[in-house]
Amino acid sequence: MSDGATIYAGEPLRKYLDDAASNKPAPGGGSVSACVGALGAALVAMVCNLTLGKEKFADVQAPVRELVAKAEAARARLEALLQDDTVAYDGVIAAYRLPKDSEEEQAARTAAVQAGLIVAADVPLEICRVGVQVCRLARTAAELGNPQAVTDAGIGAVLGEAAVQGGALNVRINLVSITDEEYVRTTTAELGALLAEASSLRAEVLAITLAKL
Amino acid sequence: MSDGATIYAGEPLRKYLDDAASNKPAPGGGSVSACVGALGAALVAMVCNLTLGKEKFADVQAPVRELVAKAEAARARLEALLQDDTVAYDGVIAAYRLPKDSEEEQAARTAAVQAGLIVAADVPLEICRVGVQVCRLARTAAELGNPQAVTDAGIGAVLGEAAVQGGALNVRINLVSITDEEYVRTTTAELGALLAEASSLRAEVLAITLAKL
Repeated sequence: MSDGATIYAGEPLRKYLDDAASNKPAPGGGSVSACVGALGAALVAMVCNLTLGKEKFADVQAPVRELVAKAEAARARLEALLQDDTVAYDGVIAAYRLPKDSEEEQAARTAAVQAGLIVAADVPLEICRVGVQVCRLARTAAELGNPQAVTDAGIGAVLGEAAVQGGALNVRINLVSITDEEYVRTTTAELGALLAEASSLRAEVLAITLAKL
Repeated sequence: MSDGATIYAGEPLRKYLDDAASNKPAPGGGSVSACVGALGAALVAMVCNLTLGKEKFADVQAPVRELVAKAEAARARLEALLQDDTVAYDGVIAAYRLPKDSEEEQAARTAAVQAGLIVAADVPLEICRVGVQVCRLARTAAELGNPQAVTDAGIGAVLGEAAVQGGALNVRINLVSITDEEYVRTTTAELGALLAEASSLRAEVLAITLAKL
């Protein structure tokens, strides 16, 4: 179970890396995927901040102001998910520890494990949704932003897609144990759509970036 | 120019994210790519640390011990590059500030700019090289490591590839201004090989991971 007392955003970057490398259960791949998405959102915001207030880019100030607000909102969401994921599996672990002596206890335990698994899948699923949003914002940044920072928009899309791929693996490892067929079906479909959109956006933004070098 | 006093590994994770999002020149996409590679290397080390010392995985203890040492070496290298990249462009900026009144001064300034651009390209090129290494190590982790942590090996490969893609964009933005044709040719060729290997390893490790879920 994760150390609920550790709020990683306030800890040194090296502690986050050290804890990720250790055999501690948190942070794991889900939290790290959210962190990578947050880094991508930060780069999109940087492109905006290198565009705002510059005479040369006067005609895009309004949309870029809107873009930076969206990028910072995505970053805040991913920073929260980076933390949420460190405890996302705690419910499953607690449920497995429930007594299983009577049939009644066994049924209650199974239900609690299943509810915990859905929570554990929902957190990385949300990482995937916001990761795709980072890719969308990176495309606008590559199109409208200061061309001197276009590689940062391109890297933003790469990191948004990486967050989606990483989150998707953590959704899937939970899906294999979830017995709610409706949840598994709708989540699998949504995941497929998110992965496809992220992959297509990454290719598109990399093409825009290379064309502007 | 970057604030040479800021050693990011010792700063709160949120400061690194905030500075990346700001209009400060550092950390930019190169440093962030190194950070993402370091996170990938950390996940590979985690898979190893969840495999070592377990009876169940007795037959792979020796190769996994070797693997964790390599993953931690790659992480240390990428943590250093995360920092190095924040000053990689300083030489170019300093060179552009050199006087250009006489023909002699102009020639010296041009030479200094060119030397600076090669330094600025070499740092992200090294990020790409170590990023590919992270993908290679992730494959071994997916093959030999505790299958309960296989998604972390998969995410390690995704992040290694993302570091290569991100680093490559930062190499390329410098290459367009470098006049040393031999450097441009050999670096372009190496970059193509690194991108191809990373892409192929990412697909392979994702396939191994999905097969083990």
